[in-house]
Amino acid sequence: MPLDPALRERILSAVADGFADQIAFTQELVRFPSTRGQEHAVQDHVFRALKARGYAMDRFAMDREAIAAHPGGAPVTDEHSDAPIVVGIHRPRTETGRSLILQAHVDVVPAGPAAMWTRPPFEPAVVDGWLHGRGGADMKAGLAANLFCLDALRRIGLQPAATVYVQSVVEEEATGNGALMAHLRGYRAEAALIPEPMEEQLVRANTGVLWFRLSVGGTPAHLREMGAGANAIDAAYRVIGALRDLEAALNREAPQHRHFDDAAHPINLNVGRIEGGDWPSSVPCWCRVDCRIALYPGMKPADMARRIEAVVADFARTDPFLAANPPEVAFNGFWAEGYVLEPGSEAEAVLGRAHAEATGEALRSFMSPCYLDARVYALYDRIPTLCYGPISQGIHAFDERVNLASLQRITGAMALFVAEWCGLEEIAP
Amino acid sequence: MPLDPALRERILSAVADGFADQIAFTQELVRFPSTRGQEHAVQDHVFRALKARGYAMDRFAMDREAIAAHPGGAPVTDEHSDAPIVVGIHRPRTETGRSLILQAHVDVVPAGPAAMWTRPPFEPAVVDGWLHGRGGADMKAGLAANLFCLDALRRIGLQPAATVYVQSVVEEEATGNGALMAHLRGYRAEAALIPEPMEEQLVRANTGVLWFRLSVGGTPAHLREMGAGANAIDAAYRVIGALRDLEAALNREAPQHRHFDDAAHPINLNVGRIEGGDWPSSVPCWCRVDCRIALYPGMKPADMARRIEAVVADFARTDPFLAANPPEVAFNGFWAEGYVLEPGSEAEAVLGRAHAEATGEALRSFMSPCYLDARVYALYDRIPTLCYGPISQGIHAFDERVNLASLQRITGAMALFVAEWCGLEEIAP
Repeated sequence: MPLDPALRERILSAVADGFADQIAFTQELVRFPSTRGQEHAVQDHVFRALKARGYAMDRFAMDREAIAAHPGGAPVTDEHSDAPIVVGIHRPRTETGRSLILQAHVDVVPAGPAAMWTRPPFEPAVVDGWLHGRGGADMKAGLAANLFCLDALRRIGLQPAATVYVQSVVEEEATGNGALMAHLRGYRAEAALIPEPMEEQLVRANTGVLWFRLSVGGTPAHLREMGAGANAIDAAYRVIGALRDLEAALNREAPQHRHFDDAAHPINLNVGRIEGGDWPSSVPCWCRVDCRIALYPGMKPADMARRIEAVVADFARTDPFLAANPPEVAFNGFWAEGYVLEPGSEAEAVLGRAHAEATGEALRSFMSPCYLDARVYALYDRIPTLCYGPISQGIHAFDERVNLASLQRITGAMALFVAEWCGLEEIAP
Repeated sequence: MPLDPALRERILSAVADGFADQIAFTQELVRFPSTRGQEHAVQDHVFRALKARGYAMDRFAMDREAIAAHPGGAPVTDEHSDAPIVVGIHRPRTETGRSLILQAHVDVVPAGPAAMWTRPPFEPAVVDGWLHGRGGADMKAGLAANLFCLDALRRIGLQPAATVYVQSVVEEEATGNGALMAHLRGYRAEAALIPEPMEEQLVRANTGVLWFRLSVGGTPAHLREMGAGANAIDAAYRVIGALRDLEAALNREAPQHRHFDDAAHPINLNVGRIEGGDWPSSVPCWCRVDCRIALYPGMKPADMARRIEAVVADFARTDPFLAANPPEVAFNGFWAEGYVLEPGSEAEAVLGRAHAEATGEALRSFMSPCYLDARVYALYDRIPTLCYGPISQGIHAFDERVNLASLQRITGAMALFVAEWCGLEEIAP
């Protein structure tokens, strides 16, 4: 049932009243350079922030066996984080509303070369209405919004009339095992909301993602015997060419996939990292290439993995050097299916009203071609999972920044959503 | 004047008598993992070995200003070795013969992945008549031969009747600045012999070599904005393609170059090392590629450098991403001209006789498409420079090894060459 207009105004005012603190808290989060494996300190900071608000706290490690046994679990390599998952639990006095998971991740992608940043990536700064810093948009602003939308209700003496889990996870940028671990821990709700930087839109459909490492090796030679050896760097690029053909074939399949039929290039193969060879004057004998590729919702990671392996093996048979030195393909990260948010859910309707009230615009939805932790709740809990968040620029790139006016609108929409979805009750005197 | 047959026999017997010790000394040298910058300890070992034999000793550092001012000097980067150059000086009682430089280098190229070696690269072992180990062939066996060919003469009470400089240098695998520094120090002789692993042949012509680093950079993007960004790893390979066209054009010029007119592919462009990108799911914004390319004798490094820069710049203008983000080319190593050993020198005739006596075969010559320190003496001293040495396998690759029977033949030929070129005198009683 739509909220009373006066209440809506009070909630949005309360969000505005807390917004300076919300920005400051977001900046605190950005100061932690929480790249993969380096999220211990920031998770402790989040733990303290939740505990200080009176939530019941849970903090737990990855259960590697349970992850390995789950069809959506990604391989746990040496680079895998062992930072904990943190959950703050709100339990109402009377459970009358619908329960909710509010989730965010604290891991951020590497900043890359410092020279490409206008200002140091882990020294957050507000410039012309944008908060700059690596991970500010993706997605520490969202993490802060999870806390501050609830704080806004509290500021006017109210709290959700249903259980809310505020979940802070890791490994969103490499495996998605953090969100999966929260699921495996047993947390369940009737909807989930994850405020990723989504340009004030709702994710309707989301690709799955696979990571893989291509390794090419073979006998090198002194340059005077170059014909006798083979250049592993050149050979790796020939294999990449074959994988680009697979990418093109997958994109030609787009019209067959609901929600992707008008996307120009939904399936991206990214050659993200390369390393090979030891010496300019030695023919390189090894080259490693780290790739990610998307898959349409409904495609199984194992099927895509087999397709990649087949492309590489088939191409290698046509190439004299590679035939003698078959490349290896290892799946070393994301092993994730995509998902579709089916239109028509009550959760989406509630978010639509909240969004319209907070922004003055109708809620639009779109297809996201990147991995999202939302897949865990959409696929394995089969609940409405709303991935929706503020306007940003430069995520996974340089001068990453989140628009603060947008962040306030989104936080307002989230507070209104929580109020209508969970219902409200007065805080005990 | 050809040597007396009985003396030849005595010299070759003396080489045979010392060969077990010569193998042991070569093994000692191989145990030093003397990659670039790591040659201090082995140079001290060589210093002691020369000093123990009674040579006058000189040991000196690179004169960076003098190298920079010389047309054959290569750029001194952070990776440049600061190990010393070592020279042992034999002065005869009576200077009646022709003076000689015997040179070798102690620096070795990286071993690369340990898994590709049958045995540890710096634990030398003799297997089936081959001495295995990184740098054994290229060229610690040659360094030992320089010492032991003189030792053989001494064993029968004789020594060269002319000044001989036994020079142990560094930086042969990256810049050639070590040999250049010995020249800049002022050492001069009437011929030079460098026993690189040359398959028992004499180098008639040798290419020059340039090293360069191609750096491609540009604005990356999150994968969902992939079209807006550009992949620096992909872009780097497009530039490599343009450089391969240059390589092909250079090889088509082979018929115009004396001593190269029947070579199928004298000019090799080697893409030796590559590194780029930070994260599989971020579009890479940087890629560095370390290359080496050969040049025909007579071509100036500066001219080839301009040609490379023009190829890269011209190609970049045709490529939307690269036009907006022009690649950089930095010359960070070899800046070396090639040379030709003109036929007909007396030094070559003397080596021819020595080789025939030691091996029973006529001395053949060939074109070497790789850098050789011999260029310093050929180009800047304008003396006959004989690059000639034993049979080997796997140099700059794996299971590098030198054939010991060949090494003994070569050492014998070197001793005969010294005897005839320098003349002999009895060691003072």
